[in-house]
Amino acid sequence: MDTPIRVAVLGAGGLGRAAARLIGQKRELRLVAICDSKGLIASPDGLDCARVASGTGELVASYRTANAQALVGATSSSREHHESSDRGEVVACEDSLGAMVERAGEFDAVLVTLPNMPNAFIPGTVERFVRANSGLVFVDVLKRTSAVERLLGMHELVRESEGVVLTGCGATPGLLTAAAVLAAQSFVEVERVDIWWGVGIANWEAYKATIREDIAHLPGFSVERAKAMSDAEVNAFLDKTHGVLELHEMEHADDILLERVGVVQSREQVTVGGVMDTRHARKPVSTTMTLTGITFEGKRASHRFILGDETTMAANVLGPALGYLKRAMWLKAHGIFGVFGSTEFMPMVVR
Amino acid sequence: MDTPIRVAVLGAGGLGRAAARLIGQKRELRLVAICDSKGLIASPDGLDCARVASGTGELVASYRTANAQALVGATSSSREHHESSDRGEVVACEDSLGAMVERAGEFDAVLVTLPNMPNAFIPGTVERFVRANSGLVFVDVLKRTSAVERLLGMHELVRESEGVVLTGCGATPGLLTAAAVLAAQSFVEVERVDIWWGVGIANWEAYKATIREDIAHLPGFSVERAKAMSDAEVNAFLDKTHGVLELHEMEHADDILLERVGVVQSREQVTVGGVMDTRHARKPVSTTMTLTGITFEGKRASHRFILGDETTMAANVLGPALGYLKRAMWLKAHGIFGVFGSTEFMPMVVR
Repeated sequence: MDTPIRVAVLGAGGLGRAAARLIGQKRELRLVAICDSKGLIASPDGLDCARVASGTGELVASYRTANAQALVGATSSSREHHESSDRGEVVACEDSLGAMVERAGEFDAVLVTLPNMPNAFIPGTVERFVRANSGLVFVDVLKRTSAVERLLGMHELVRESEGVVLTGCGATPGLLTAAAVLAAQSFVEVERVDIWWGVGIANWEAYKATIREDIAHLPGFSVERAKAMSDAEVNAFLDKTHGVLELHEMEHADDILLERVGVVQSREQVTVGGVMDTRHARKPVSTTMTLTGITFEGKRASHRFILGDETTMAANVLGPALGYLKRAMWLKAHGIFGVFGSTEFMPMVVR
Repeated sequence: MDTPIRVAVLGAGGLGRAAARLIGQKRELRLVAICDSKGLIASPDGLDCARVASGTGELVASYRTANAQALVGATSSSREHHESSDRGEVVACEDSLGAMVERAGEFDAVLVTLPNMPNAFIPGTVERFVRANSGLVFVDVLKRTSAVERLLGMHELVRESEGVVLTGCGATPGLLTAAAVLAAQSFVEVERVDIWWGVGIANWEAYKATIREDIAHLPGFSVERAKAMSDAEVNAFLDKTHGVLELHEMEHADDILLERVGVVQSREQVTVGGVMDTRHARKPVSTTMTLTGITFEGKRASHRFILGDETTMAANVLGPALGYLKRAMWLKAHGIFGVFGSTEFMPMVVR
């Protein structure tokens, strides 16, 4: 690939900003747009990834502060406020997603880094892009089975628009699910796939949506309820367990993605759980995928894929997501269109 | 896939016969031909895999003995002896490979299970098939860098013939190398990939060529020298180390296959070694792929992929090889032709 892939990122929380930082380190990628719910920043020549990554709070406000001296023009309407500078365009608006859809001709691929949205949100977003533009390339780091299932149901719509959507391309589902597909190769029957993750975050406020997504998996919670909690409520909740959340039987799309390619016969054979420490960067447990099966000689054994404890959630989610993004571009170049799961293609390495 | 993939196996030693047994357990595959250097057996309706797998020694002789009552006809020429029965055709001949090439229209894919051949042998075999037939699908479990490199150099020839060759699709390279591609996703720089394997074989005579291939990697040995050793010489050699071989810095194609996709910048970053116990089924060490890299946040860590000790070399070589064979069929169906390495595509699961 000679010219960089022009990437737009949807979401500018902890994960979205980490994505900007990682993209800034890849010569095959160029960050041309990023948005949160209040606005977007965009530049066809590429945004300053380090500047985007280092901001905190609302995207437009933080970028505008950093960029104040560089402004060369500004226009306002009732719904949008535009500013231009040599560092790109800054748009504050009510419908930032709509503004991104309008700009879709300016980028090659969309990476979605929104970890805590209702199940219909990302499928709805894909539909908006597909209806407005043909040839969309879209990669998500969705976790929930019901959201991934909804997206997989959009295969024909995406295929007809000559687009490619790869879903469930983070760490789990994503990296660990793909490792399960590899591990399955040694067996004629897979009995179980057990994913047990550890995440350590020194300061939970850097990953507010991710933490809320995990709280949403606890008994008695839902995505909507976790999303509605104030920061003070989340703090008070975390205080009860000294900042540690232990999650079992999570609704994770590893099950549907492994069932889909035949690694397991039933989703019940896949379990996902883990331990999140929201007050220490050190992982409370080592993230491990264990696949247990029977070989053609009738022997039972378990293969394991274990992530290094020093790797962060951001590295294990975003690295694979970008690897799949390059694979999605490859699929499009080969005329292979539609919605596919992270278990269907080996990610390519982004140089 | 509705109709089974018709598979021909080249090689009927320990690995080839284990392949027959494994293929017999897969409803998506049908074994239609298998050969050794002295002859072949073939049946368009599918061979009796258990019968092929249970034989020992020369293929044709062992199959003929098992099949004696079923013969319905026989013809001989100076170079070939044919027998037919309701269990297929048995051909004893000098050029069994040539006889397989002549029959290439009868199968969809070729799996090569010849672990100890000179570097030019398998590339030469591919060339014979390609020149005689278009649309070949060919999967090997080659180990040596120089053999894989030669095969990769045949990309244009294979592409023009609308064939697909996937090379290095066993355990290492193959399963473990693909795991390294996955593991690499979490890092912006990979420092090292270290593969350390353990193999336990209760009776080395069941895997004569595999053991000779390992001996060939020892200082002072070569493929030719190991191939020329008599069984008594191999026995005497193994006696010196109580049947245990420890190998370091092996010439394994994991290096070129990982360099090719950009996981490493230089082949020197990849090491392969291991311990083979030729007298006990129990593995002397757990087979482990360790990838060490630096994340986008500057953290050094190692991901590991560890195979269950109860899995055999045959399960870890042949399972992946058949998964890649199905992937190769998929590539051909999508019009993607040429020679590719096992690091380029996620294997598919053979149901």
